[in-house]
Amino acid sequence: MNYEFKVTKTLSPKQKPDPDTLEFGKVFSDHMFVMNYTEGKGWHDGRVVPYAPITLDPAAAVLHYAQEMFEGLKAYKTKEGKILLFRPDMNAKRTTKTNDRICIPALDEELFVEAIKAVVRVDADWVPEKEGTSLYIRPFIIATEPFLGVRSAKEYLFMVILSPVGAYYKGGLAPTKIFVEDEYVRAAHGGTGYSKIGGNYVAGLKSQEKAHDKGYSQVLWLDGTERKYVEEIGTSNAFFVIDGEVITAPLEGTILPGITRDSVIHLLKDWGITVSERRLTIDEVYEAYDSGKLSEVFASGTAAVISPVGELCWKERKIQIHDGEIGELSQKLYDVLSGIQLGNVEDKFGWTVEV
Amino acid sequence: MNYEFKVTKTLSPKQKPDPDTLEFGKVFSDHMFVMNYTEGKGWHDGRVVPYAPITLDPAAAVLHYAQEMFEGLKAYKTKEGKILLFRPDMNAKRTTKTNDRICIPALDEELFVEAIKAVVRVDADWVPEKEGTSLYIRPFIIATEPFLGVRSAKEYLFMVILSPVGAYYKGGLAPTKIFVEDEYVRAAHGGTGYSKIGGNYVAGLKSQEKAHDKGYSQVLWLDGTERKYVEEIGTSNAFFVIDGEVITAPLEGTILPGITRDSVIHLLKDWGITVSERRLTIDEVYEAYDSGKLSEVFASGTAAVISPVGELCWKERKIQIHDGEIGELSQKLYDVLSGIQLGNVEDKFGWTVEV
Ligand SMILES: Cc1ncc(COP(=O)(O)O)c(C=O)c1O
Ligand SMILES: Cc1ncc(COP(=O)(O)O)c(C=O)c1O
Repeated sequence: MNYEFKVTKTLSPKQKPDPDTLEFGKVFSDHMFVMNYTEGKGWHDGRVVPYAPITLDPAAAVLHYAQEMFEGLKAYKTKEGKILLFRPDMNAKRTTKTNDRICIPALDEELFVEAIKAVVRVDADWVPEKEGTSLYIRPFIIATEPFLGVRSAKEYLFMVILSPVGAYYKGGLAPTKIFVEDEYVRAAHGGTGYSKIGGNYVAGLKSQEKAHDKGYSQVLWLDGTERKYVEEIGTSNAFFVIDGEVITAPLEGTILPGITRDSVIHLLKDWGITVSERRLTIDEVYEAYDSGKLSEVFASGTAAVISPVGELCWKERKIQIHDGEIGELSQKLYDVLSGIQLGNVEDKFGWTVEV
Repeated sequence: MNYEFKVTKTLSPKQKPDPDTLEFGKVFSDHMFVMNYTEGKGWHDGRVVPYAPITLDPAAAVLHYAQEMFEGLKAYKTKEGKILLFRPDMNAKRTTKTNDRICIPALDEELFVEAIKAVVRVDADWVPEKEGTSLYIRPFIIATEPFLGVRSAKEYLFMVILSPVGAYYKGGLAPTKIFVEDEYVRAAHGGTGYSKIGGNYVAGLKSQEKAHDKGYSQVLWLDGTERKYVEEIGTSNAFFVIDGEVITAPLEGTILPGITRDSVIHLLKDWGITVSERRLTIDEVYEAYDSGKLSEVFASGTAAVISPVGELCWKERKIQIHDGEIGELSQKLYDVLSGIQLGNVEDKFGWTVEV
């Protein structure tokens, strides 16, 4: 395949935002990548164009039946001024699985990565340099065919937009308070939990608002069948350190296979630490706390890399983890992972890709 | 509240489609209803305008996190040329519940109905007259705020579009072949099954394609926890007639509370027939078949009104229902319900509303 995309540059570049006050996902760069799919013709006309609104028929399938998927990754600027992506091939592979689950035509995985590189290259000066900042990359596919009926669409758009984002933690890592959700459910076996589709996220809004109202920053999801096993924390994967063993939910179709999760597992194994991908009940977590064996809980994801959990609340019972302080493993994983992403720590697994 | 909406008429009316070759959801009328929501200001600027594409920022929440809901109902033209809606207040009530589930700001229920009437009035000559045809009405709400982050949006559009549709059955009612889905799941307790959101539909595409490939027109969904209880048939509710009792799944949060379902229950009770809203296992259905007690299976929904099931296939075992012919109850319910909708049968429950 030919990955030479036509580039049309903007005639009115925007002013770049102040790196000190950057928020998440509010400001977008000057350009975007766009590619069309039409039945019979396949994916075609990949191009980099000025960031601009899109026009959709009110009957476009995406607006009614949510045939839409997305990905999320970041570009980082190194001290030497190089731009690095972190494991974009993994986002491409996850896209293939997501597309299959919701009947979106497959997208070539190399093309997916090249499209990202193409638009990041054009907007290279939108990758912020200040410590902790990065350029958030949002590839997504939407069904555009105007047709009211429940079947997969015959027309799609694949787009990549870019948003410079600030440090997730102003002033270093900080432990979060997490509410254990035992009413609403995020995913069930046979459902779409492992795929990155809009529908999985909208289902969680209600629960998130409940947690916020109670003073918690995120929810810990339990399994959809028995509300017994721990699954994910908000939009990140969850890890529990019990008696020296690091435990995270297995990939059985209900949780998103996080790229940070996979990287954490690799690092821990490399450090000789026992990691288990296995079912873990919320009861076991509380029992481990009671017996003094629960040493750390943390979440992993692209947005925050590692997010230590300082408090859990389940059925009114609150427990403080690691005295509400950051655990050693959380801190080390954060330092090493963000070090690799920024090119400051040796990338022995070959995870970073230069743009 | 003031339900006088500003009307801007199109200067280039489209040609109406041939009523003989009408399909479902492909052709749209000349006008649409549009109303905006902005945080602080609430819902405002309801208006009828020419049908036209809408412009969205590529970061609009609906395109990423599927914060979107829809409804579906029909307008029918009576022999006297009147235009009737069928229980639109029920669609308004369901909208309130759906909005609450996915954190869309509440929409006044009377306004919802008045908006529909307003646009149908302007496009009154788009309601087709040929037997079996109708004007499909699609109210929907989408989150338009450009913001990449998982939280409810602060800007929305409420729209109503109209599509003239042909007879669901060309040449009378016809029994369908239904595949019992025991792998993929549509909804779970604590999930969003009872709400009319895009995310529920995209999750079913894969299963539907599987059923089509095997020669079935739709799937029968089983419950998400045990894959044991019958829930819905495609995008309609399911009824089983066993030994004189008509059984349909209860409203426990996993199935859509169909307006046709509710109407069927009312009619059956009025006719002195035993109706039970209760859990029913697929095993019971097959046992009833084996003992000769399963007399009819049918689906209910706005699109087809009543759709008799002629064959079920569960784990490779196929059973013919009512010898693959239309059952008496299915036929009677279809005749009476569509008779009421068209103004040909006395509307003793006061279900129809004139536009
Ligand atoms: C539901 C969910 N789980 C986990 C993750 C973490 O995945 P990753 O590490 O690839 O960012 C994300 C974020 O992308 C997510 O949305
Ligand atoms: C999932 C689902 N179940 C049931 C129904 C039937 O509901 P109604 O009778 O209100 O059309 C529909 C269609 O709207 C549906 O989408």
